[in-house]
Amino acid sequence: MIETPYLLFLGDAPDPLAAKVAQGIKDWRPENCVGQFRMEGCRADMKLPDMTLEEAKAAGAKTLVIGVANRGGKISAAWKEVLMAALDQGFDLASGLHNLLRNEKDLRDKAAETGRTLHDVRIPEVEYPIANGEKRRGKRVLAVGTDCSIGKMYTALALDRDMKAAGMKSSFRATGQTGILITGEGVPLDAVVADFMAGSVEWLTPDNDDDHWDVIEGQGSLFHVSYSGVTLALIHGGQPDALILCHEPTRTHMRGLPGYALPSLEALRDMALELARVPNPNCQVVGVSVNTAALGDSEAEAYLRQVEDRMGLPAVDPYRHGTAPIVEALRAM
Amino acid sequence: MIETPYLLFLGDAPDPLAAKVAQGIKDWRPENCVGQFRMEGCRADMKLPDMTLEEAKAAGAKTLVIGVANRGGKISAAWKEVLMAALDQGFDLASGLHNLLRNEKDLRDKAAETGRTLHDVRIPEVEYPIANGEKRRGKRVLAVGTDCSIGKMYTALALDRDMKAAGMKSSFRATGQTGILITGEGVPLDAVVADFMAGSVEWLTPDNDDDHWDVIEGQGSLFHVSYSGVTLALIHGGQPDALILCHEPTRTHMRGLPGYALPSLEALRDMALELARVPNPNCQVVGVSVNTAALGDSEAEAYLRQVEDRMGLPAVDPYRHGTAPIVEALRAM
Repeated sequence: MIETPYLLFLGDAPDPLAAKVAQGIKDWRPENCVGQFRMEGCRADMKLPDMTLEEAKAAGAKTLVIGVANRGGKISAAWKEVLMAALDQGFDLASGLHNLLRNEKDLRDKAAETGRTLHDVRIPEVEYPIANGEKRRGKRVLAVGTDCSIGKMYTALALDRDMKAAGMKSSFRATGQTGILITGEGVPLDAVVADFMAGSVEWLTPDNDDDHWDVIEGQGSLFHVSYSGVTLALIHGGQPDALILCHEPTRTHMRGLPGYALPSLEALRDMALELARVPNPNCQVVGVSVNTAALGDSEAEAYLRQVEDRMGLPAVDPYRHGTAPIVEALRAM
Repeated sequence: MIETPYLLFLGDAPDPLAAKVAQGIKDWRPENCVGQFRMEGCRADMKLPDMTLEEAKAAGAKTLVIGVANRGGKISAAWKEVLMAALDQGFDLASGLHNLLRNEKDLRDKAAETGRTLHDVRIPEVEYPIANGEKRRGKRVLAVGTDCSIGKMYTALALDRDMKAAGMKSSFRATGQTGILITGEGVPLDAVVADFMAGSVEWLTPDNDDDHWDVIEGQGSLFHVSYSGVTLALIHGGQPDALILCHEPTRTHMRGLPGYALPSLEALRDMALELARVPNPNCQVVGVSVNTAALGDSEAEAYLRQVEDRMGLPAVDPYRHGTAPIVEALRAM
């Protein structure tokens, strides 16, 4: 569990895209952000107050979160100076970088000396159990995709937001590094050892109120040969009551796999549902979430109506329209 | 890669079952075993020559393999004495125990001093790639089960033996600790990090002659919620040309999961085949392997004939009858 609120470290981000982790935190948990820390040459801006470490500390920030990708896979000397000073001033550090904070001797020593915590969210910090398959109380919804990187996290975050706005009880359950930094907790599922994947998802989505929904962030795709095992562990560990199908209509092949076509929404529905009914025979597919960013307004609208007609399910682009019809379908369950 | 041949360490095995790893090595790779080492009170016997370390060394043994489960999860002082002496005499050590050889400081120091290797086969020793899904040359057959621990390793080893006897080119590809100790190499798939599971299976079953078969040891079950992700990684990483369905007809629920019924062979066939056709559209189910140990001869015979009629596939108990009809089906592909 990462302590909030955060000071977002944007470093020397060469462009806004490099700071997309910070953007995700700002978009989805603005209440967790007291400000941003930018170095000379930074070309990203979260429209948060620019703060020194001292100012952020005075404003209550507990953790400096690295919200930016580093160049060349190294933590530069310029960054290091800020990170060391942050530890000295009582901040914890949190990072989703491939190269771990804990592998930097000076940061490790400084954290030990100051009693602060280094959170490398790519690495599990919990000994997860083996899944036991026992039915848990409360409800769970999982986003599954025709491909990787197709909008499952965005869909889950939008659903969580819209369910809360509709007065429902819900918790976004992060399973990837960006999601973990956004919410401050979760399971870095792609880094969990095979035998414990499903158990980690059970651990992440425990017993809860009967009318509470866990909105579980999806990973991979049942049809993506590199990561499908991770997806199936989510389906079997999460024992979802409801599935949302995620799709992007202009993609020509599976991400990173030339020659592999995307499955149809129908094939995804049938496969995911049969597998989800192993732990939860009542599981239903309740809606389709389409990333229509590549389509114009009227094209997007036409595509969504066509999907609704074909599938007999509400279809939305959560970015363009929110998720209201899916929220209503979940409420009705 | 573990150097052969082996001296099998049976320690103070309280009963033959405790030495089942040694039994597997003796049954399937007798040519890898020069002898056995038994301590006082040992109640297991592989019917191999009893040897001292000196005698085994003189007979050419390279590795002392711990073929017995330890009591209470600790490496006892009595065992330790033998293991230390083995390192001194130039043996490598290999173990599938949960508590690792490398975590014993005296063994680690001794191995460093003598230049010997400690093989803990539960732990991956390779940095596996992420799966790329590219089609590889050569053929692959994978055993999938209606449940865990249902005879998939035995089926694969029997198939490999019978294919070789029939003059075909084949390699048993181990994916679990016992299989790795039997063959001296493989991937401890249940200990691989999620993102690299399918890639490790691609690594294990590389390009090969067009008429060569990799016989891949299965793990878990698509219908076992604790381990299904591992199974799917095998299916997608292994890109099998052929699947064998494994079943045990008297089991009342999924192993370790009371309340979870086993799927039918038909449900397993349909699910596994659809998933296997993502990387390999030509994949076929070629036979059924049934563990009939709990049935009498005529019951077993009747059960197998009934499965053959129902499924339209050859059905064998590899222990009772060998795998000849399945070998013929593979040869015909």
